[in-house]
Amino acid sequence: MVAEDGIFLEPIGWVESTIVERSAAPKQADEGAPSARIVIRPELSDALRGLRAGTPVLILTWLHEAKRDVLAVHPRKDPNRPLTGVFATRSPDRPNPIGLHATVVERMERSAVVVRNLEAIDGTPVLDIKPVLGEIHER
Amino acid sequence: MVAEDGIFLEPIGWVESTIVERSAAPKQADEGAPSARIVIRPELSDALRGLRAGTPVLILTWLHEAKRDVLAVHPRKDPNRPLTGVFATRSPDRPNPIGLHATVVERMERSAVVVRNLEAIDGTPVLDIKPVLGEIHER
Repeated sequence: MVAEDGIFLEPIGWVESTIVERSAAPKQADEGAPSARIVIRPELSDALRGLRAGTPVLILTWLHEAKRDVLAVHPRKDPNRPLTGVFATRSPDRPNPIGLHATVVERMERSAVVVRNLEAIDGTPVLDIKPVLGEIHER
Repeated sequence: MVAEDGIFLEPIGWVESTIVERSAAPKQADEGAPSARIVIRPELSDALRGLRAGTPVLILTWLHEAKRDVLAVHPRKDPNRPLTGVFATRSPDRPNPIGLHATVVERMERSAVVVRNLEAIDGTPVLDIKPVLGEIHER
């Protein structure tokens, strides 16, 4: 085990969405989220080469409005559900509030990616884009 | 689009693994990775409540040996494959080298989680643990 100090990230881009308030965001993408545009820093646009309409991708975001000192929650804010550690839930409130969004590329632009059903609010920083892994022989 | 400065993360824990060198790590978990122990900061152990043996989880790691200035690679280091943007590959070398590992909890300890088939090297910082989402009615 190696002791490690802090880790510094810069967003690769930002979400442009019609969802502007956290209270209006669906809890998950398949619960009614709209398409959204991810604007990538122009100096990183070479990193998009190979993504195309139809590519299944995972978007990693920084949930910048989340509370980082919350360790346990009632899942989906339902008081009837037992208090559960945040690592056993998808609560945005957690020590490192990284959002993980499975979606599909709808359209590529020179320095932006339009994706389907993204439940992140407008202005959310984006940390990474990864393709969904296929079967071993397809990698 | 909101301009945002840097983002600061602290690991929630670290990987203990028999894999000690990057060259010895399988490229993906289902290509022969061993079980590993994730040691969580003791002050965060309440966040583990609800995880148990058999829970499918996603482990987010910080790939601390990755190169952050690489924008395109030949997938799987195969020179016959076309140069591809890192956002269209799972290369560890990328602007924000966050690793994403789908696995299953093998055993819980008070302040640690033992998981199956983790392709991260010993000492890798861990950023987050999330349950795999089930169907909508199970959330």
